[in-house]
Amino acid sequence: MKAAIIGATGYSGAELIRFLHQHPYIKDYTVHSSSQVGVEISESYPQLNQITSLPLQEINSLKISEDADIVFMATPSGISKDLTPGFVENGVKVIDLSGDFRFKNPEVYETWYKQKAAPKEVLQKAVYGLTELNREQVKEAKLIANPGCYPTATILGLSPLLKNINIDSGSIVIDAKSGASGAGRKASLGINFCEVNENFRIYKVNEHQHIPEIEQGLKTVCPQLQPIKFNTHLVPMTRGIMATIYCKPLEKTSQKLLVELYQQFYEKEPFVRIRKQGEYPATKEVYGSNFCDIGVTYDERTGWITVVAVIDNLVKGAAGQAIQNLNVMLGIDEASGLNGPPLFP
Amino acid sequence: MKAAIIGATGYSGAELIRFLHQHPYIKDYTVHSSSQVGVEISESYPQLNQITSLPLQEINSLKISEDADIVFMATPSGISKDLTPGFVENGVKVIDLSGDFRFKNPEVYETWYKQKAAPKEVLQKAVYGLTELNREQVKEAKLIANPGCYPTATILGLSPLLKNINIDSGSIVIDAKSGASGAGRKASLGINFCEVNENFRIYKVNEHQHIPEIEQGLKTVCPQLQPIKFNTHLVPMTRGIMATIYCKPLEKTSQKLLVELYQQFYEKEPFVRIRKQGEYPATKEVYGSNFCDIGVTYDERTGWITVVAVIDNLVKGAAGQAIQNLNVMLGIDEASGLNGPPLFP
Amino acid sequence: MKAAIIGATGYSGAELIRFLHQHPYIKDYTVHSSSQVGVEISESYPQLNQITSLPLQEINSLKISEDADIVFMATPSGISKDLTPGFVENGVKVIDLSGDFRFKNPEVYETWYKQKAAPKEVLQKAVYGLTELNREQVKEAKLIANPGCYPTATILGLSPLLKNINIDSGSIVIDAKSGASGAGRKASLGINFCEVNENFRIYKVNEHQHIPEIEQGLKTVCPQLQPIKFNTHLVPMTRGIMATIYCKPLEKTSQKLLVELYQQFYEKEPFVRIRKQGEYPATKEVYGSNFCDIGVTYDERTGWITVVAVIDNLVKGAAGQAIQNLNVMLGIDEASGLNGPPLFP
Amino acid sequence: MKAAIIGATGYSGAELIRFLHQHPYIKDYTVHSSSQVGVEISESYPQLNQITSLPLQEINSLKISEDADIVFMATPSGISKDLTPGFVENGVKVIDLSGDFRFKNPEVYETWYKQKAAPKEVLQKAVYGLTELNREQVKEAKLIANPGCYPTATILGLSPLLKNINIDSGSIVIDAKSGASGAGRKASLGINFCEVNENFRIYKVNEHQHIPEIEQGLKTVCPQLQPIKFNTHLVPMTRGIMATIYCKPLEKTSQKLLVELYQQFYEKEPFVRIRKQGEYPATKEVYGSNFCDIGVTYDERTGWITVVAVIDNLVKGAAGQAIQNLNVMLGIDEASGLNGPPLFP
Repeated sequence: MKAAIIGATGYSGAELIRFLHQHPYIKDYTVHSSSQVGVEISESYPQLNQITSLPLQEINSLKISEDADIVFMATPSGISKDLTPGFVENGVKVIDLSGDFRFKNPEVYETWYKQKAAPKEVLQKAVYGLTELNREQVKEAKLIANPGCYPTATILGLSPLLKNINIDSGSIVIDAKSGASGAGRKASLGINFCEVNENFRIYKVNEHQHIPEIEQGLKTVCPQLQPIKFNTHLVPMTRGIMATIYCKPLEKTSQKLLVELYQQFYEKEPFVRIRKQGEYPATKEVYGSNFCDIGVTYDERTGWITVVAVIDNLVKGAAGQAIQNLNVMLGIDEASGLNGPPLFP
Repeated sequence: MKAAIIGATGYSGAELIRFLHQHPYIKDYTVHSSSQVGVEISESYPQLNQITSLPLQEINSLKISEDADIVFMATPSGISKDLTPGFVENGVKVIDLSGDFRFKNPEVYETWYKQKAAPKEVLQKAVYGLTELNREQVKEAKLIANPGCYPTATILGLSPLLKNINIDSGSIVIDAKSGASGAGRKASLGINFCEVNENFRIYKVNEHQHIPEIEQGLKTVCPQLQPIKFNTHLVPMTRGIMATIYCKPLEKTSQKLLVELYQQFYEKEPFVRIRKQGEYPATKEVYGSNFCDIGVTYDERTGWITVVAVIDNLVKGAAGQAIQNLNVMLGIDEASGLNGPPLFP
Repeated sequence: MKAAIIGATGYSGAELIRFLHQHPYIKDYTVHSSSQVGVEISESYPQLNQITSLPLQEINSLKISEDADIVFMATPSGISKDLTPGFVENGVKVIDLSGDFRFKNPEVYETWYKQKAAPKEVLQKAVYGLTELNREQVKEAKLIANPGCYPTATILGLSPLLKNINIDSGSIVIDAKSGASGAGRKASLGINFCEVNENFRIYKVNEHQHIPEIEQGLKTVCPQLQPIKFNTHLVPMTRGIMATIYCKPLEKTSQKLLVELYQQFYEKEPFVRIRKQGEYPATKEVYGSNFCDIGVTYDERTGWITVVAVIDNLVKGAAGQAIQNLNVMLGIDEASGLNGPPLFP
Repeated sequence: MKAAIIGATGYSGAELIRFLHQHPYIKDYTVHSSSQVGVEISESYPQLNQITSLPLQEINSLKISEDADIVFMATPSGISKDLTPGFVENGVKVIDLSGDFRFKNPEVYETWYKQKAAPKEVLQKAVYGLTELNREQVKEAKLIANPGCYPTATILGLSPLLKNINIDSGSIVIDAKSGASGAGRKASLGINFCEVNENFRIYKVNEHQHIPEIEQGLKTVCPQLQPIKFNTHLVPMTRGIMATIYCKPLEKTSQKLLVELYQQFYEKEPFVRIRKQGEYPATKEVYGSNFCDIGVTYDERTGWITVVAVIDNLVKGAAGQAIQNLNVMLGIDEASGLNGPPLFP
């Protein structure tokens, strides 16, 4: 098996390298970038010194198609939709970490991403790679649309409820928070240290492009879903997402029942961990790992359910889930390359 | 005018000193503590070197009653309820920064704070010092119950809506976030640097003691209020609170109308600033200052209103609002001592 | 008195506004920028909402010369050297926060800043505004070269020694550390949150442009000074500089003697605070203030003196010292506008 | 092979678990603590949920001696000196992460640690486990004194120079900086988030207990070493140490020569990486890994050499080096369990 990472100078690209370095099967891969061609990747990422001396190569679709069995697209949204169809046509499997192939309906993409969508026929081939919910389809996929970071936490957090409990879907509020690495590796005043540090802010109010992705994902378990309220905040930290999710059940329930429901729902999942009653995960408890940790409670006083779901946005929210999907596609142990425990403190 | 600060070694105590140092009228004050008596306050707070050489004095109620015209209680909850009645009896005005006098109904305090409440007759004398809403009562008060940090942001954020718009009060969700200084200055593993830094966590789910304070406050503007959903999170930063508030109006509204409503509601307030349509405050924009900054929006797609209210928890959420109340009680410029702009970056 | 701030959208510009807002005499000022002309400054700095509604004006030297009595140049190095001569010629006083007028010898500037120096005749008029050491000259100055942040901490830290003790000047090592705000407000990958946070790095090894400024400054108290070793590090924090200074005395000395020496040397200084024996300042103890705090010790075991000097790089290292110099020039209380205690925590 | 971790609730203990979980040979281990006996380790460290369900056991020397082949002492200094002799006597190998067995001369320990030293005969058996310098002895060791965090960075940073270049050892200045995890997991005001965040401070000036350890280590390569100047600072970050080391060669040298010297010296080392000329490592480039990265330069202008050495204090400075030593003792691949690349960002 040979892989190619396109967009290797971004944070997700660097994480892919980290996981492939620990992967038992995929040792052979190339790294590609639209800039810094010819330069060793360790020039961009000195942490990779002595780990890899791979040079960055140009993004030559034809050559990559000839050399690679699997391509990771770790590029910003808007790039993959032009490159991926060629790979797919050439029989190369693609795992796309961008938003370009996540929507079955191209109009949704065009409305929220404000650019032209990928060709409809290629969109139809894409499997939405939220592994826990779509494992069977992932196994057969030629093209994986790797989920967004917020949708991963949110959909994993809400699915057990929507599948098993009568929820007033009009009551769903998702208050999400992310570390700054979600913005990618680029020069931008808004993510400068002095603007983010010792500060907490809300952004993209009412208009985050992950809203339709969450709604599409939740509709597969709850077809009658009403539009959801979803807002995002920037936390002065590098990694981590927490989705604090609120909703009202139509009938009374209990903390105990809810915790049991979640434990059963995710019983066999290697990467979803449910906290026991009265405990909730913090983002650092999944730091650097592919886990999604979830706590759930019911407030007798108010009738609200609160679900707390955390992931490392660069891992389960990006590169880690991509490797998890690769493993499923290859039919190997789903945790291959992903065994390292979270880093704490 | 002579003041006494009881609990001067806590963060709120230090902030009171910072503001009194810049106050045009109250230059004469003493500092009191149950520990470190005899030691200069600058031993605890080296930033105060050459600013004050006041020694910490014991908490001798009788002597303080003789010497001081006004007492700031900057002690943890549970201390003030024993000390304050004596001061009030002796004719000394008290501004209590703890939770001990915030509830008209002692049972509510006892349920949520899990300890005996202050005497009912003293509770009756206390004025809830959310200055913007209770200015007239503050003017005449002998005893101010200075509001909690979360209630300040939340009640200021929700009052214009609840007073002017038909809100489904059962839909109110308040997702609040705070920096670590809200936990006070004490040795505690949970607030150690390595446990808080690069981490984001939820705490006191369903059971934060500020819940009944918020409900009591909101009921003065919306008597039929249903129980509210309120959760709190710890942000890896020192200062700052953001309350992200969600609620559904019973009729359609618009962003423009809401912004205008808020601007009118707080038009004459020196310390409340409303962002224009499409803009929302970040916590650092009020850093070190007594401002409460608010942004509001309406999501046409979902029918939800989002209100974003930020304060510096140690200032408008504690010491600053105490000084503001003092100024109102004294009939002087409400911003006396509080003129310093926020510190940014 | 009317002032103009040129480069008001930078961090030093914003700090100048913060101090002028609290200044008893200079209430009238204009703000100028090469970008965003016509826009209110609070668009760039929302913390200034309701504090000032001044619009950014273009940098029209002629008009500024007509309107202003004093100009603050808060621009990056390389801008002031072209603008300042015109102001000086027009009789407008200038306080330049950049490096353009700090060197008597233009060749030194050209070597270290790698660009053309200001005209020699204007350089000759400039007074190096390290207030504590040059107060008499500042009083009469038409043009102040406001010192760099590192030189301020270092020269204040070393001067008492070099003036009073026989130091082996070849042994001087200055290991300096700064928060990220020293890099200014700009989009740059190197100061992105994720690159700075939870990281510590050294930069500009052997070649920091503040080296010749420190040497020029120290030579005024120690003419036979040998070249000094000076390195700088980036700390994951926004504000603050610490210079840890090492040197060897030619004769034995003692901690007690050194502390007394420093206390006497700075006895009458409003903004220099000497810690007592065995205590050393932390950067946060001067946060947001114009203080330079210093601790000094002697290590009997090794014969090394250690001096620890801290400042807030944006205040005593930039805008605050500029205001201090202004106050000296005006013959008013040197602390005017600078009375706010440090912000802690 | 069976291992026991004593002091498993500390940060080093948790790191040992992280590495053993990824170790190809040591899967079987027990965890011991003086508190929380009977509780699962994941109660203390929720990141370990589903990774291990081991309960904390009491520290019963006899039972541990029967069950374990190797004991990791991850306890604070002062504990191991009482427990370790028994293990050694029982033929159990010990890797002690505390300072108790690092000094050949018990008086040095007693002077700097201010408590009674371990028995001299056991001290004599201990091998100082700085793997790169003592690999041959480590292979045969029964008792490893695992080096301190600062000494690891400093001795690795200085050894190539002291072995190969004529250095004025009286000129050596080591200005060291560490993240807060070096202080361990405990409740202590000085390491509370609000006291450390956005702050930089110096501590234990002239008196850090790692000074004699560094001197003892350097004397093995430079017997005539004069007392060194070594100071430590607390950086507002969790992990990472940088030692910035200054010294003067007695003859001129060059950047090129120095870099080559270091590259040759550490050529075959799996965990030491030398940066090329003009480049220096940042702490995050070794984050979570066992690397020690080093940059070195010569300043023609001043004649000073600067060496920059970084490690992750919890890994190469504690648990990682312990595993590395274990691997050497076992004669297996030295990187077993330590293959994960650094985590960046």
